[in-house]
Amino acid sequence: MSKTMAVNAGSSSLKFQLLEMPEEKVLMQGIIERIGQESAEITIKYGADIEPKRLIGTEDGHVSLTKNGGQKYEHETMIKDHHQAIDFLLQKLTDLGIVEDFSEISGVGHRVVAGGEWFNQSVVVDDDVLSKIDRLADYAPLHNPANAMGIRAFQKLLPDALSVAVFDTSYHQTMPEKNYLYSIPYEYYTRYGARKYGAHGTSHRYVTERAAKILDIPLEKFNAISFHLGAGASVTAIKNGKSYDTSMGFTPLAGLTMATRSGDVDPSLIYYIQEREGLTNAEMLQVLNTKSGLLGISTISSDMRDLEGVQETNFHADLALNMFYDRVIRYAGQYFAELGRVDALIFTAGIGENDAVTRAKVLEALAFAGVKVDSAANNVRGKETVITTVDSSVAGLLIPTNEELMIARDVEALK
Amino acid sequence: MSKTMAVNAGSSSLKFQLLEMPEEKVLMQGIIERIGQESAEITIKYGADIEPKRLIGTEDGHVSLTKNGGQKYEHETMIKDHHQAIDFLLQKLTDLGIVEDFSEISGVGHRVVAGGEWFNQSVVVDDDVLSKIDRLADYAPLHNPANAMGIRAFQKLLPDALSVAVFDTSYHQTMPEKNYLYSIPYEYYTRYGARKYGAHGTSHRYVTERAAKILDIPLEKFNAISFHLGAGASVTAIKNGKSYDTSMGFTPLAGLTMATRSGDVDPSLIYYIQEREGLTNAEMLQVLNTKSGLLGISTISSDMRDLEGVQETNFHADLALNMFYDRVIRYAGQYFAELGRVDALIFTAGIGENDAVTRAKVLEALAFAGVKVDSAANNVRGKETVITTVDSSVAGLLIPTNEELMIARDVEALK
Repeated sequence: MSKTMAVNAGSSSLKFQLLEMPEEKVLMQGIIERIGQESAEITIKYGADIEPKRLIGTEDGHVSLTKNGGQKYEHETMIKDHHQAIDFLLQKLTDLGIVEDFSEISGVGHRVVAGGEWFNQSVVVDDDVLSKIDRLADYAPLHNPANAMGIRAFQKLLPDALSVAVFDTSYHQTMPEKNYLYSIPYEYYTRYGARKYGAHGTSHRYVTERAAKILDIPLEKFNAISFHLGAGASVTAIKNGKSYDTSMGFTPLAGLTMATRSGDVDPSLIYYIQEREGLTNAEMLQVLNTKSGLLGISTISSDMRDLEGVQETNFHADLALNMFYDRVIRYAGQYFAELGRVDALIFTAGIGENDAVTRAKVLEALAFAGVKVDSAANNVRGKETVITTVDSSVAGLLIPTNEELMIARDVEALK
Repeated sequence: MSKTMAVNAGSSSLKFQLLEMPEEKVLMQGIIERIGQESAEITIKYGADIEPKRLIGTEDGHVSLTKNGGQKYEHETMIKDHHQAIDFLLQKLTDLGIVEDFSEISGVGHRVVAGGEWFNQSVVVDDDVLSKIDRLADYAPLHNPANAMGIRAFQKLLPDALSVAVFDTSYHQTMPEKNYLYSIPYEYYTRYGARKYGAHGTSHRYVTERAAKILDIPLEKFNAISFHLGAGASVTAIKNGKSYDTSMGFTPLAGLTMATRSGDVDPSLIYYIQEREGLTNAEMLQVLNTKSGLLGISTISSDMRDLEGVQETNFHADLALNMFYDRVIRYAGQYFAELGRVDALIFTAGIGENDAVTRAKVLEALAFAGVKVDSAANNVRGKETVITTVDSSVAGLLIPTNEELMIARDVEALK
């Protein structure tokens, strides 16, 4: 019996999931938010059959039953840093009876946003790896330092558990150079690593492997287009089971219209606006990252559901939705042409799993290539489903993503 | 008998073509370069049957016979501005016997780069139009002032000729807003006109009309993808005979890999490089416009022919060519998905008309949609040719562009 923790550390948050491996059974999942602020919020969900080992008093938090028959622990208290957050979490795992002893946790897998060209797969974390993750903060200034903080805190509190780094970018390291390079002076690539790195690699990898299995096609012969459509969104062209091209670029700003990110923009226009608005580079990037996308066009919300609710009467909401559909369709066509042969079109993440309209729009736009949506089958949410007709030239699939499971599998493989 | 002059004025150059209309017969064409510099170069080509009206002495220039049986007038002399250039040109037209009298020139059509949202078609130039062309210099600081200079000089010297402005952008004014807008705050569109304007409109319009005619499809039902591939390059999706989307953006920097322009780049990367190189906005834009593209990647040349010559032995040349092919293919796929049904794939301009490899690569990448290149037919240069097989799902065509003729036709239509 071996337990593996999948961790996603943000600058003021910690998301975690504990899995029984190799059974792949989720024992608990949760999040600690607002670390370092006045009062952090802790939420831990776990099975109904688990009995507390130590009585939880009201000052220690609150346990309730959830709608789907599990238990939920909630608490608010000051947590000053990631070390204290993890200490608190481990304590609660034993208190709540989820683990008997910390030593049962034999591996911890950490999501790391930027892996640069150094990491083309998940690795056991040693000092060299940690130092590289630190140095890659240049490429992901908001994320990599937080990821490194999470790794260090877990290493200290669970020194015997195997520590593994799973990079968002590593899956995309198989892209050929003609796809990952920009048409700018080549010396910028050698001098600064100026190239496309992509993101959401763990998710694209997970759904690709699932789709190949469902369709019973050997992964090494499997071509697909994977649509990870959430608040952050990217499309990946998969050739022979490997990432061949992806819509995110040097950073996750590029590509599709996202919740608040702009995606692709003529660089000249950025300067034109910046100079007229009197913004610094950092301020302009802030606009492109946090005030653009669905929010920027609609002027009312970054959430697809809000926009769909008022689409018929609100010009801006309708426009934002149509731009979103359109940008996804553009990449669908682009990757079809880049791949030549496509075996599957895979939809995942918040919008991809729950928004039947988006999926239908994309599949319908590919009718010229023989793709045929099955409207009845497509009317589904968050469940593995084939959403194209039997005579469709390419299979369309909805596959809920599971990055935590992918992380736990990588830890297992490195044990 | 009516003669129309098609003019393309640059900041230090003047290109011109004189046509007999409506017969569409080219009477002469030429260029005056290095205006305002120490010594300008004048070249005028015209028919072999034309007799000089006034003897040309050696101090006035030199007339020779060209390979294809015409005559060529060449001269070098100081020309201080566009007014003097046009004065010189008109004088030479009578001296050489190309026109008897200036009054025969009943119309002058001027290429204007930026027409913003004000001009969705060619217009007769009046004071209001000229003032708008001046104000649009914000969008094309290098070009519009030169275009306006050319218009003013011709108006002064040929006050009775109809003066017409033909905009590079006006053909693209039919794009729907979901295609011309960027996913940035909507207020930037209303405040600064921040949107996609496109370019090469006159060329895309010309080849589209030719292709519809050749294929005998009514223009208003004609869907096509037009590849204008020269030193500057753009792809346009044409729906029902009108521009529906195009690869150039707010400026001609966006879209494809070009001779020296970068095309699409993640905006974050621009700032990343700029800060590390210590460049101003203007300097960074200069790099993206003049040191990127084929030149930036290959490090040796911006010219396809140079790169093809060393492709087999030079890694960078091979990479640059493959990136160029790839970016054209990306837009081909993208516009296929945006249009759904495509009747023709049209290749034009320097590379489009002369590079069989590029055309073949693009057509082959669309095999998944039933496109079949005819390799024998495709082995051609600069000649109207159908380059796909009879059983190809979409017709591929090579159509030499003719912007001057399009300009003259617009002048004729406005008479």
